[in-house]
Amino acid sequence: MPEWRQDLVTGRWVIISEQRAERPYEFVERSQRRTATRCPFCAGNESETPPELDVSRSEELAVYDSPWVARVVPNRYPALSEQAPGVEKSSEFERCLPGLGAHEVVIESPRHLRSVTQLTMAEAVAVWELYGRRFDHWAQAQPDWYPFLFKNVGAAAGASLEHLHSQLIVLPRVPSEVELELVGSRRFYEQHAECVYCDMLRRELAQGDRVVAETEHLVAFCPFAARQPYEIWILPRQHSTRFSCLSADQNYELADLVHRILKQLEALFEHLSYNYWIHTGPSDPLVTEHYHWHIEILPRLVKFAGFEWGAGYTVNSVAPEKAAANLREIVV
Amino acid sequence: MPEWRQDLVTGRWVIISEQRAERPYEFVERSQRRTATRCPFCAGNESETPPELDVSRSEELAVYDSPWVARVVPNRYPALSEQAPGVEKSSEFERCLPGLGAHEVVIESPRHLRSVTQLTMAEAVAVWELYGRRFDHWAQAQPDWYPFLFKNVGAAAGASLEHLHSQLIVLPRVPSEVELELVGSRRFYEQHAECVYCDMLRRELAQGDRVVAETEHLVAFCPFAARQPYEIWILPRQHSTRFSCLSADQNYELADLVHRILKQLEALFEHLSYNYWIHTGPSDPLVTEHYHWHIEILPRLVKFAGFEWGAGYTVNSVAPEKAAANLREIVV
Repeated sequence: MPEWRQDLVTGRWVIISEQRAERPYEFVERSQRRTATRCPFCAGNESETPPELDVSRSEELAVYDSPWVARVVPNRYPALSEQAPGVEKSSEFERCLPGLGAHEVVIESPRHLRSVTQLTMAEAVAVWELYGRRFDHWAQAQPDWYPFLFKNVGAAAGASLEHLHSQLIVLPRVPSEVELELVGSRRFYEQHAECVYCDMLRRELAQGDRVVAETEHLVAFCPFAARQPYEIWILPRQHSTRFSCLSADQNYELADLVHRILKQLEALFEHLSYNYWIHTGPSDPLVTEHYHWHIEILPRLVKFAGFEWGAGYTVNSVAPEKAAANLREIVV
Repeated sequence: MPEWRQDLVTGRWVIISEQRAERPYEFVERSQRRTATRCPFCAGNESETPPELDVSRSEELAVYDSPWVARVVPNRYPALSEQAPGVEKSSEFERCLPGLGAHEVVIESPRHLRSVTQLTMAEAVAVWELYGRRFDHWAQAQPDWYPFLFKNVGAAAGASLEHLHSQLIVLPRVPSEVELELVGSRRFYEQHAECVYCDMLRRELAQGDRVVAETEHLVAFCPFAARQPYEIWILPRQHSTRFSCLSADQNYELADLVHRILKQLEALFEHLSYNYWIHTGPSDPLVTEHYHWHIEILPRLVKFAGFEWGAGYTVNSVAPEKAAANLREIVV
């Protein structure tokens, strides 16, 4: 069963989860599986996944001969488990905790698609609706846990199955990357009495050189200290701490913006692999004014090597100003 | 020219270095280049690299028809530069610094080899000698800078050239990964009046289940909170803060141990890609008792995906106790 372990020196937590090794294609440099093998996420193969946790249905899509548009199922090879047993020996020097948490998969189309850009808008909106419903579900079911939603598209982005999907890992602690943002945004708020992201948005819009796209409620830009080429953040214009169920219009706006940005990236880079994820404020009621939910998009154009792992620095060979300018030139 | 930029929220530094994009094979999912194109690191092609900074020569190896065993040259596509000009605009909200630093390449054989395990012991020892000499050189030349030495073997480990080499990036600051270790080891020292790594070594040797190999002066083990399957650390048994020139015997012992561990890993995993790097204490004279230099070896068996990037946690599907047991079974 999974276990959280803490490194004695750095304090870093890792998840030891031997069940993850059972999933197909682990440890193999592979092209991703095509339709040669039976895809567990395709319409008609629903019995190959655990029973559904939630589902979107739509009459519009009956044309695909599927009763569903998008489904949420438990991950068959979970990194964490709601039933993780206690750990036998945790000590001052070898600190460990039960591998508590949850791990779900959002199957984003009944069709065997590879990228978000292949979804119809009706499908894409259904997916964002489902995300919101899962966030709201977990806010009720385990208010102290943190819902971390992410997507891996393409083998270079760590996907082990090709069929378009995303994952929700519900964590018993705030992810360390979000914790860093919480600490920094709290410090900024104490100094400036303003949300650092609201301040950043105002400056980005005034300067304009890193802005990728704007909509009524959202702004997409390449951040000043982008870690990798073409890293893009999407923020709501209005201060908003947590991601949750959005209105139908807002879901459409978000789905459309993400779709357009990925289309632009795919126009620049063939066979693009990418990740994106949502950073939302934790349930802690003290976190309100200083944190601002956002989406981070990371095209996987370069490999993480010894310098990144061992030194902790990334080298970005495309200045974000240039990346944004290149993206703005692509009309989709 | 390169530039350091700091993220306003997290405080994370990144390197923006457009010159890196000029190197061959950037942004292409590729098999690594074979002998079809002319390899700039092979004997006879010395004119394709910038002039040598240091070199090892040995009569023993005249058999390869090369006057050198290993060479150090400046990286033609440096991430950082000793001549980085000042940055025009750094502000409270967009903090940046000149991209100061140095970037060298250690070419580890005149022959077109892929992995360390293909080196003769004479070659391998010459390489460790060169590492020591470069550390000593930089300790004199720029005592406040930090020498970060790392190796990428195989495309999955981020190597852009196949010919066996490693890289030394000399940084104007302590790498953030080492800073985390310094903070943690200082805290441990204050609480226990002992080096955390010395304490860890004693416990690992007493328990034994994560030990991979021991030699007279060195111990290799899979750490308790290993981030990835088969992560291995090598530490000197005796407390030692900084890596520098070792005796000939110690160089041989280290080269031989690394060679054996990589042979074991390659016996378990075909076409293995891997990274390793040296974590050494910074020049700060206050860092002595609490820090202990070591080598971290990371086989690249799984891909970094959205969870690792966005949440900051890794999922390790092979418990380090099991990894160590599997390695001990392989006799090389």
